[in-house]
Amino acid sequence: MKPVNPTLAATFSPPVMEARRWLASASFPPDRPLINVSQAAPVDPPPEDLRRVMSDAALNRPEAHLYGPVLGNDDLRATLAQSWQRFYDAPVTPGHIAITQGCNQAFCAAMTSLAGAGDEVIVPVPWYFNHKMWLAMQGIRAVPLACGQGMVPRAQDAAALITDKTRAIVLVSPNNPTGAEYPAETLSAFFDLARSRGIALIVDETYRDFDSREGAPHDLRNRDGADETLIQLYSFSKVFRLTGHRVGAIVTGPERLVEIEKFLDTVAISTSQIGQIGAEYGLRKMSDWVAAERVEILNRRRAMREAMQSVPGWELVSVGAYFAWVAHPFDMASDELARTLVHEAGILMLPGTMFMPDGQGKRHLRIAFANADAAGIAAMASRLADFTPDIRD
Amino acid sequence: MKPVNPTLAATFSPPVMEARRWLASASFPPDRPLINVSQAAPVDPPPEDLRRVMSDAALNRPEAHLYGPVLGNDDLRATLAQSWQRFYDAPVTPGHIAITQGCNQAFCAAMTSLAGAGDEVIVPVPWYFNHKMWLAMQGIRAVPLACGQGMVPRAQDAAALITDKTRAIVLVSPNNPTGAEYPAETLSAFFDLARSRGIALIVDETYRDFDSREGAPHDLRNRDGADETLIQLYSFSKVFRLTGHRVGAIVTGPERLVEIEKFLDTVAISTSQIGQIGAEYGLRKMSDWVAAERVEILNRRRAMREAMQSVPGWELVSVGAYFAWVAHPFDMASDELARTLVHEAGILMLPGTMFMPDGQGKRHLRIAFANADAAGIAAMASRLADFTPDIRD
Repeated sequence: MKPVNPTLAATFSPPVMEARRWLASASFPPDRPLINVSQAAPVDPPPEDLRRVMSDAALNRPEAHLYGPVLGNDDLRATLAQSWQRFYDAPVTPGHIAITQGCNQAFCAAMTSLAGAGDEVIVPVPWYFNHKMWLAMQGIRAVPLACGQGMVPRAQDAAALITDKTRAIVLVSPNNPTGAEYPAETLSAFFDLARSRGIALIVDETYRDFDSREGAPHDLRNRDGADETLIQLYSFSKVFRLTGHRVGAIVTGPERLVEIEKFLDTVAISTSQIGQIGAEYGLRKMSDWVAAERVEILNRRRAMREAMQSVPGWELVSVGAYFAWVAHPFDMASDELARTLVHEAGILMLPGTMFMPDGQGKRHLRIAFANADAAGIAAMASRLADFTPDIRD
Repeated sequence: MKPVNPTLAATFSPPVMEARRWLASASFPPDRPLINVSQAAPVDPPPEDLRRVMSDAALNRPEAHLYGPVLGNDDLRATLAQSWQRFYDAPVTPGHIAITQGCNQAFCAAMTSLAGAGDEVIVPVPWYFNHKMWLAMQGIRAVPLACGQGMVPRAQDAAALITDKTRAIVLVSPNNPTGAEYPAETLSAFFDLARSRGIALIVDETYRDFDSREGAPHDLRNRDGADETLIQLYSFSKVFRLTGHRVGAIVTGPERLVEIEKFLDTVAISTSQIGQIGAEYGLRKMSDWVAAERVEILNRRRAMREAMQSVPGWELVSVGAYFAWVAHPFDMASDELARTLVHEAGILMLPGTMFMPDGQGKRHLRIAFANADAAGIAAMASRLADFTPDIRD
């Protein structure tokens, strides 16, 4: 086929789609159904009151079918600004908010405001694969930053990687794929580093609502220079079960949003109205529901931690929000192991190789446990304890 | 602010947003309300049966709230493939279809599969400004191709612009902003040129359903090499009044869709489920409604042609689908004239400068007449006939 953009051709294919293809060749007996811990996206719809709000809008609100403002509906921007201001105890105006067609797009838009082909961006490894894919297809070099204890990266390690081509550092906390919750001091040190070197700090807070710590996980929004240095990303997909509507957000200085508006006008024009209406309702009315969801996720996290203790040879490296990062004991690369687990243990999880530069990640896997209840997590651990790959030496 | 991506900083701001800002400083007396012909997007919601389908899905279909496949829902891809096959009398499978978050994103995705920073793409001028914005922010050079009689470009003129950096030619037919409907022979010559030179031909058919010609406007889908050379773009936004849901499509060879899937996974993950459900219903059930909409648009086009004959000094250069491209008689650049028309005639239309390289387009304006009925079009023409700018020499 020609022509083809070589930077896109060199970008790997969507890992989640690849993992789904593994299922096509497998069969699962009724007494041992598939345990799918490959993705943690909600599998149930939002609660009825939220569905009803969106349903009523589709029938009765003409504007629910028409273009909205590029940076998002005024009411959603205002409600999110209030929510952000309250949560971080920091000044946030609607002019700090852009609404995007999901949080992946928020990353693409923010990154386009910072970097182009030939630039560099520092990304802790393991990384979130869609971040790496965007950087690859844009010709931006992702500079890997190894994590320390508990899968937490260190600002001093990042400092050594900064060159005159570096435009940003990207953090995800709580992390996908490791679940690690970055300490406030870690985030603070990264902010200081970014500001002092004139680069941006992106903090993807997609899983913020499932952090085990109470209250704000950092004070960056209150720091001098936050509008210029800090770009926070947020998602409405997980917290309100709105994945099918594609609503995310960027919180940063109004000056950068002038640039981001150009990207969003060109790629999106505006975000789904129905999704924005749902997100706005959720922010105003569903905090009790979200709190209960968080408690349930924290229960599953505890179950995950306990269950893995009973699996000989496996190590739980880090766990939090929707994810656990585990090390396996076998003399086999994780990508081969993951395919073997589908067929021999009826478990689908993603191998560490999908989250790392070529040749790395062979000892690790990501377990996305958010959709498994305590019994499901125990069943998974039991199957792992019984499992030995046939081809082990 | 730093850092900032210089190619994004050099990209112009969204013209529609800029034009809206002109309104903020204007006042419109009750006896002479604003006539807004700046945008032709629908201002009314879809008909009730389509609204009810989406409303019911939001309340009762769990999958309407969850992620879908990256390339679109199976039923929508199948229905669009059937529709496309019937319309073009050409073989089109679901594997030829990608669903996108609107047709702007379809362009961004298709272009990313073709070209990156430093490449060139040939674009007739005047161009659709969001196409130009994407090329600019990606560091792709938009090579302007002047149009001939009736604002139709010529393949032989494009041939002279092809270099070893050229990756594609982009056509929009019926055209935005000129309304020109490109003859089948023109499209055929462009296809032959693209195929023979190993570059792609993108044909944006957003306004296809409002073409004045009956049946298929070209036979390119049936030509040898169509899967490799031809990329058609489509929008559900105008035809079913779904602008607020963001649903568009790409029709091209399955091999290119493997690359496009990487872009869509990263930027979108999937398209709004409610929007896809609405679009699928529309394709199956609303052909009579669309036919009536088309007749009304063609009536307005006729009214537009007649009305402009009564405006001294103005010339209707081309007209079709939602748009007319007009030349004004004043010794004033069109961007200044457009702002003057807001204040002195109560008319908002976009200046030709917004659709042309710097320094060009000063004699022309785009009139987006699709939302004006015959009386509204006559009123606009009457105001134009009465108008003389104060600062004329």
